[in-house]
Amino acid sequence: MKLMRVGTVGTERPALLDQAGVLRDLSDLVRDIDGTLLADDEALARIRAAAASGELPELDAAGLRTGPPVARIGKVVCIGLNYHDHARETGAATPQEPIIFMKAPDTVVGPDDTVLVPRGSVKTDWEVELAVVIGRTARYLETDEQALAAVAGYAVAHDVSERAFQIERGGQWDKGKNCETFNPLGPWLVTADEVPDPQALGIRLWVNGELKQDGTTADQIFPVAEVVRYVSRFMTLYPGDVINTGTPAGVAMGQPEPKPYLRAGDVVELEVDGLGRQRQALRPA
Amino acid sequence: MKLMRVGTVGTERPALLDQAGVLRDLSDLVRDIDGTLLADDEALARIRAAAASGELPELDAAGLRTGPPVARIGKVVCIGLNYHDHARETGAATPQEPIIFMKAPDTVVGPDDTVLVPRGSVKTDWEVELAVVIGRTARYLETDEQALAAVAGYAVAHDVSERAFQIERGGQWDKGKNCETFNPLGPWLVTADEVPDPQALGIRLWVNGELKQDGTTADQIFPVAEVVRYVSRFMTLYPGDVINTGTPAGVAMGQPEPKPYLRAGDVVELEVDGLGRQRQALRPA
Repeated sequence: MKLMRVGTVGTERPALLDQAGVLRDLSDLVRDIDGTLLADDEALARIRAAAASGELPELDAAGLRTGPPVARIGKVVCIGLNYHDHARETGAATPQEPIIFMKAPDTVVGPDDTVLVPRGSVKTDWEVELAVVIGRTARYLETDEQALAAVAGYAVAHDVSERAFQIERGGQWDKGKNCETFNPLGPWLVTADEVPDPQALGIRLWVNGELKQDGTTADQIFPVAEVVRYVSRFMTLYPGDVINTGTPAGVAMGQPEPKPYLRAGDVVELEVDGLGRQRQALRPA
Repeated sequence: MKLMRVGTVGTERPALLDQAGVLRDLSDLVRDIDGTLLADDEALARIRAAAASGELPELDAAGLRTGPPVARIGKVVCIGLNYHDHARETGAATPQEPIIFMKAPDTVVGPDDTVLVPRGSVKTDWEVELAVVIGRTARYLETDEQALAAVAGYAVAHDVSERAFQIERGGQWDKGKNCETFNPLGPWLVTADEVPDPQALGIRLWVNGELKQDGTTADQIFPVAEVVRYVSRFMTLYPGDVINTGTPAGVAMGQPEPKPYLRAGDVVELEVDGLGRQRQALRPA
C-alpha cells in the first residue's frame, strides 16, 4: 500500500493512493499514519480490506499539500557514507561498520515543502536517500530476517546537509544535519510487502532539471537488513522511527571546484523507484 | 517552581513540589508538563497562583515513581567538552565553538529509573550535566537576553555514554550516546526565575558512594546563554526541547588505567545545586 498524509502542516489527514492512482480518505478508518498504526497489524489489515473493497471515499487531490507520510516520528537515524561510489567521491575510506548520526524529528517536512537555506550557509548540499520506516520495536536483533520483519515500509528522504556546518565547525556532523526543513520525507510510505528487494532500487536526484545523482541501492555498503540489525545493537528502534540509509555519489561536495552548492531559488527533485518523487524549491531562512 | 511528573512509565501525572516540600497534584489544572505548557504563560501563571493559594490537593509521595519532568521532548541537543577541566582530562583541545551532538528523546527516563548497561559494553561512563529546557521557539537568536528568555527552566541530566561505541566504532559520537535509558532527567524542572545564575551551580556525581565529579557550572567554556544562542543558528529550538550543557571533569574515561567504567550492580547518584538529586542502579540490558 501507498500510505500518505495530506493537508496543511499539522492538520494532515491519513490517506491511501490506490492502485488506480486515486487518492482515498482513511480518516474514518484510522486516526493517523504513525508508529501506533504501523505496529497494529489489525488496523493495517482493515485498511487493506477497505482498499480492496473499493469503498473508501475519494479525496480531491487538487491543491492538497502532501505532508510527511509518518506523524510523530520518534527519531531519525542516519547512516553515513553507505554507498561505495559516494565514499569514493568524498575521499573517505570505505567504512568498516555503519557510521551513525542523528537528525531531530522536527527537521522532517513534506516532500514538496520549501527547503530553507540556513543563514550564513554557503555549502548547502543535497542527498537523496532510501528511508526505512520501523514498524516493530527492534532491540539487539540477531538475524536479517528479524531486521526486515521490523520494517513497516520505505520512503524517499532528502538528507539535506550543510557541509561547512557539518565538517568545518568543530566536532560532530549533527551540526550540519539538523537545520529546519532539512529532511523532506515522502510522498508515500510504501509498505514493505510492495518492496520485495530494497537492494534493487534506482535512486536519482536533479538540481534545476540537471541529473546529479543516479545510483542504485545495490551499491549500498551495508544493505537495509544489516543496517537495521546493526543499529538495534546501539539503540532501540521503535515503531515510527526512520532510518535514512545513505546517499549515492553525485553530491555537490564531491564535484570539482567551484562546487555547485544549493542557493535560494534552486529547485531539487528526487525519486526512488516505486517510492515516488519529491520537488523542493529553496528559499532563504 | 519545581515541576514534576509522577507515576508509572507512560501514565505520569503533572505535580508540583511546593516550598514546604509537599507534593501537590496539578492534574486538575494542566494536562501535562510539556512544551505546550512551557510556552503558555497563562497556564504557568495559573499554576503559580494555585500554588500560592495553598489549595492544590496533596499527593502521597510514598512509593510514587518520579518520571522525567518533561513529556513529549522534541529533541535532546548535547554540548560536548564544555568544561575546561573535562576538556583537559580527555586530552582534547579547548573547543573554539560548541561541539553539538544529539540524543534521541526516547533515551530519556526518570531520575531514579534503572540504567541499562548495553550488551557487549565494557566502557559505560557517567556524565552529570545541567540540562536546559526550552520554553520559547528559538531561531537565529542574536543576544544573550533573547537566549535566556527562551529558557523555561533547568534540570539535572545524566548523559550516560558508552565510550567504545562513541569513539572506537567508526564515525560519530551518537553511536555511544543513544542506548536505551541513557538520559535520566529530573527529578524537577526548576523554572528559570528560581535559577538566577545558571553559571554558579555546584554539580556532583558519585559512584557507589564515592565522589567522582565535583564541579561548578562556572567552569563552562560556553555558558548557557551562549549555548542557546549558538545552537539556534544551526537548528530551531522548540518548547520542550532539552539541551544537555556538558559535564565537568571526573568521568571514568579521564581516570588512570584500569578505568573504572560502570558495570551492572553499580549505583550512580548525581545532583546539581537547587535542581535535586538522581539515583540509578545499573542492570544488564
